[in-house]
Amino acid sequence: MRMYDIIKKKRDGNALSESEIAFFVDGYTNGDIADYQAAAFCMAVYFQGMTEKETAALTKCMAESGDTIDLSCFGELSIDKHSTGGVGDKTSLIVAPVVASLGGKVAKISGRGLGHTGGTVDKIESVPGMKSMLSPEEFISQTKSVGIALIGQTGNLTPADKKLYAIRDVTATVDSIPLITSSIMSKKLAAGSKNIVLDVKVGSGAFMKTPEEASLLAENMVKIGKSCQRRVSAVLTNMDAPLGNAVGNSLEVIEAVQILRGEKKGDLFEVSMTLAAEMTALFKNITHDEARTLVEKAVSSKMAYEKMKQWIKAQGGDVRYIEETSLFEKASHVIPVYSPKDGFISSMDAEKIGNTAAILGAGRISKEDKIDHFAGIILNKKTGEKVKTGDVLAYLYTNDENCENEAVSLFSSAVTVESKKPEKKELIYRIIR
Amino acid sequence: MRMYDIIKKKRDGNALSESEIAFFVDGYTNGDIADYQAAAFCMAVYFQGMTEKETAALTKCMAESGDTIDLSCFGELSIDKHSTGGVGDKTSLIVAPVVASLGGKVAKISGRGLGHTGGTVDKIESVPGMKSMLSPEEFISQTKSVGIALIGQTGNLTPADKKLYAIRDVTATVDSIPLITSSIMSKKLAAGSKNIVLDVKVGSGAFMKTPEEASLLAENMVKIGKSCQRRVSAVLTNMDAPLGNAVGNSLEVIEAVQILRGEKKGDLFEVSMTLAAEMTALFKNITHDEARTLVEKAVSSKMAYEKMKQWIKAQGGDVRYIEETSLFEKASHVIPVYSPKDGFISSMDAEKIGNTAAILGAGRISKEDKIDHFAGIILNKKTGEKVKTGDVLAYLYTNDENCENEAVSLFSSAVTVESKKPEKKELIYRIIR
Repeated sequence: MRMYDIIKKKRDGNALSESEIAFFVDGYTNGDIADYQAAAFCMAVYFQGMTEKETAALTKCMAESGDTIDLSCFGELSIDKHSTGGVGDKTSLIVAPVVASLGGKVAKISGRGLGHTGGTVDKIESVPGMKSMLSPEEFISQTKSVGIALIGQTGNLTPADKKLYAIRDVTATVDSIPLITSSIMSKKLAAGSKNIVLDVKVGSGAFMKTPEEASLLAENMVKIGKSCQRRVSAVLTNMDAPLGNAVGNSLEVIEAVQILRGEKKGDLFEVSMTLAAEMTALFKNITHDEARTLVEKAVSSKMAYEKMKQWIKAQGGDVRYIEETSLFEKASHVIPVYSPKDGFISSMDAEKIGNTAAILGAGRISKEDKIDHFAGIILNKKTGEKVKTGDVLAYLYTNDENCENEAVSLFSSAVTVESKKPEKKELIYRIIR
Repeated sequence: MRMYDIIKKKRDGNALSESEIAFFVDGYTNGDIADYQAAAFCMAVYFQGMTEKETAALTKCMAESGDTIDLSCFGELSIDKHSTGGVGDKTSLIVAPVVASLGGKVAKISGRGLGHTGGTVDKIESVPGMKSMLSPEEFISQTKSVGIALIGQTGNLTPADKKLYAIRDVTATVDSIPLITSSIMSKKLAAGSKNIVLDVKVGSGAFMKTPEEASLLAENMVKIGKSCQRRVSAVLTNMDAPLGNAVGNSLEVIEAVQILRGEKKGDLFEVSMTLAAEMTALFKNITHDEARTLVEKAVSSKMAYEKMKQWIKAQGGDVRYIEETSLFEKASHVIPVYSPKDGFISSMDAEKIGNTAAILGAGRISKEDKIDHFAGIILNKKTGEKVKTGDVLAYLYTNDENCENEAVSLFSSAVTVESKKPEKKELIYRIIR
C-alpha cells in the first residue's frame, strides 16, 4: 500500500477502505507518512468528503492511535459533554454538578483556552488550590465517590488527532465535516464515556454559521458515535453573542455558582438546563422532558450546588470561594465601555469579545502565554436590549493598565447598535439523537 | 501576507493576485514556506484551477526563480522544441539538424530518461565521445557556429519547478493543467528561446488520453507563452504506440540517422517533419506549408544529415558512428518476441513498452540507476499491422541475461492482437498557434 495511491483515490472521489484509512492514520502517527502527504490528503477530503463508513473508520483509527480511558466500571452511567467552542461558555461548570447530583458519572478531560475561546481547565484553576491533574486512579476513584472529576490533558490520548489537527490548522483544511467529526469524536471515544452530549454552537461567534450547516455536522457526529456503540445526542445552541454575562475565568466561575444557587436565569441558565436534561435523558434512558423536570429540581433544591462544592473540595479547591464568591481577587482596573448612541444592540461579535478578553489577560494569544485568572468582561447589555447614549455596555477587568485602549476599541467594534429592534433568534435550535 | 490565507483563497475558488503568487513561489523556493503548505496549495489548485492570468504569473515567477539563459544574440532565430513525453520519441535528434540546416538556432537543454520515458541526453551520449555538458560560452558559440548545441541540465534553472514538481509527484497533484503548464513553460522561458514548438502527445501512452484534453493543455501553454512574449505553437501528435521502431538509446540514434538520410519514412518521419516545419514556420515567419517544403528538401538534399554530423563533431562525438551506424556496439542478447495468434495488432501500450526497455537496461527505474546505451527494443510490427502466429513482434536487446523472462512477459502483455483490423487513428491531430 502506498500513501500516494490513497491520496489519488480520495482525490478522484472514491471511498477508501478501512485498511487504507488505517494505513494512513498509523503511518502518519508513527512518522512513516510525511506532513506533505497528510496535507494533500486533507485537502482532497475537503473537496471530496467522506462517506459515513469512511468517517467512522477514520474516527475509530484515530481514537485507537494512543491511550484510551476505561470507564466500563461505570456501566451506562458515564456521561460526557463536548462544546464545539464558544465565548463565555461555562456550561461544563454547571451541567457536571447537575447531572452528577442525579447519579451521572462525569469523568471529563477538558482543554485550556486558546485564541478567542476559553477552556474549562483554566476556569477551575481560578479557584485557589484546585488541581487540574489527577493520577488515573484518583480520576476514577473521585468519579466513583463524588460523581465528577474534571482534569486537563492526560497521557497520550489521540496522538493522531493532535498531529492531524496541527497540519490542518496551517493548511486551511480545518473546515471539513468528516475531519471535524473524526477529530471531535475520536477524542470523545478515547475519553471513554458511554453517553455523549454534543453542544454544537451556531451563529456569528461559532464555526457553523447556520442551523443547516450545524445540523449536518451534528447528524454526522451522532451517527459516527452510535456506530461506535455510544449513545450520542447533539444540541444546536445559539452563539450569536457570548453565553451569559461573564467572559474570563474567575468571572465565569462566579456566574456558574449564581446559576447553581438559583440566583440567575437567562440564556446561560436555559442552555445549561437543556444540556443537563439531555445528558440525564441519555444516562437514565428517560425522555428529555422527564429529565428536564429532574435537572430543574436539582438546581432549585440546591442539590447541584452542594455537588459542586463537594467536587471542588475533592479536587483540592478552596470551597469558601464558592460559598462566598466575593473572596475572589478583583482585577486592579475596571473599565466601563459606553454605548455611543441610542438604539438596540443588533449584534455582538462573540469572537471579537473573546479576543478582547484575551487582550485583557484572560486568554492566550499563543500557547505559551500565561493567563490572568481575574481578568475578563462583564456584559451589562446583550443582543436585543435597548440602550441609550452613555449606558454602560460592559465592564472590562484587567491587571494590565497598558491594554485599555486596544481592548476598549476592539470591544466597541464588536457591538453594533441600531435603531431597529433586531429579530429574536432561537436560543436552542434543535436536539438531534 | 500568510501562506495560510493564500491556500484558503485558492481553496475557496478565488483568483490569486500576482503578489500572492510571487509570495508563494519565492517563499517556497527559499524554504520559508513548508512542503505541507505547498502540497495543500497544489491540491487546492487541482480542484479549483487557475485563471490564465494566474497561470501566467505562476509561470513567470517560476521561470525567474533561478538562472535564465540569454539567447537574445540570436534575435528571432532561436527555436526550441518540447515534448510532453513519449516512448521511442527521438524527434529532437531529427528536427534539430533539420531546422539548424535552414538557419534556425537550436540552443537546447534536454533531460535524461526516467521510468518508461527516455531522455535526449542519454541518447546522444551513446555516440562515443559526445559531451553532454558545455560551458555557457561554448554553448552559445557552438549554437552560433553550428546552429545546434544540446546539453543536459545546466546551472540553477527553475529551482521553484524542481521543488514543486518533486512535491506534486508524491502528493497526486501532477495532473493539473495550470500546474503542468507552468512547469513546462517556466523551463522553456528560462531556457531563453524566442520560438517554442510544443509536441503534445495524445493517447494511451501519453499523459493526455484524448485530443480534447490535450487541446486544453496545448491552448493553455500557447497562451501563457505568448503572454510572455514568445512565439509558441503546439502540435498534437499520437502516442498510442511508440514512435518509430526503435526504443533505447543507440538504437534510437541509428533510427534518427536513417530518417535524416532519407532511408526511412512512416510515423516517425511524418511527426518529425511536421514538428520541424512548424519550428521553421515560427522562426522564419512563414506558413506551415511553405516551411514543410523547405524541411523535406533539407532532408532529401542531405543538408540536415550533414548538419547532424557537424553538430556531433562539434560536441566531441565520433562522426564515424553516424556515417557507419553498424559501428555501434551490439547488445550480447537479442530475444525475439512472437505473436501468440493470427490477427491484427489492435493496441500497443507505450508505457509498458517503455518499461520493458528500462528492464532491458535502456532506462532508469530510479534516478541513480546506470543505463546501458545499447539495450532496447526494435519493433517489427506496429499497431494496425496484420500478424500470424509465430511472427516476430519485436527483438529485445540486452546485456543482462537475467532479465529475459520479465522483459518478454511485460512486452507480451503490452501488445494486443485481435481478429478485427483496428480503426486507423490520426497521427497528427491539430496544430495550435
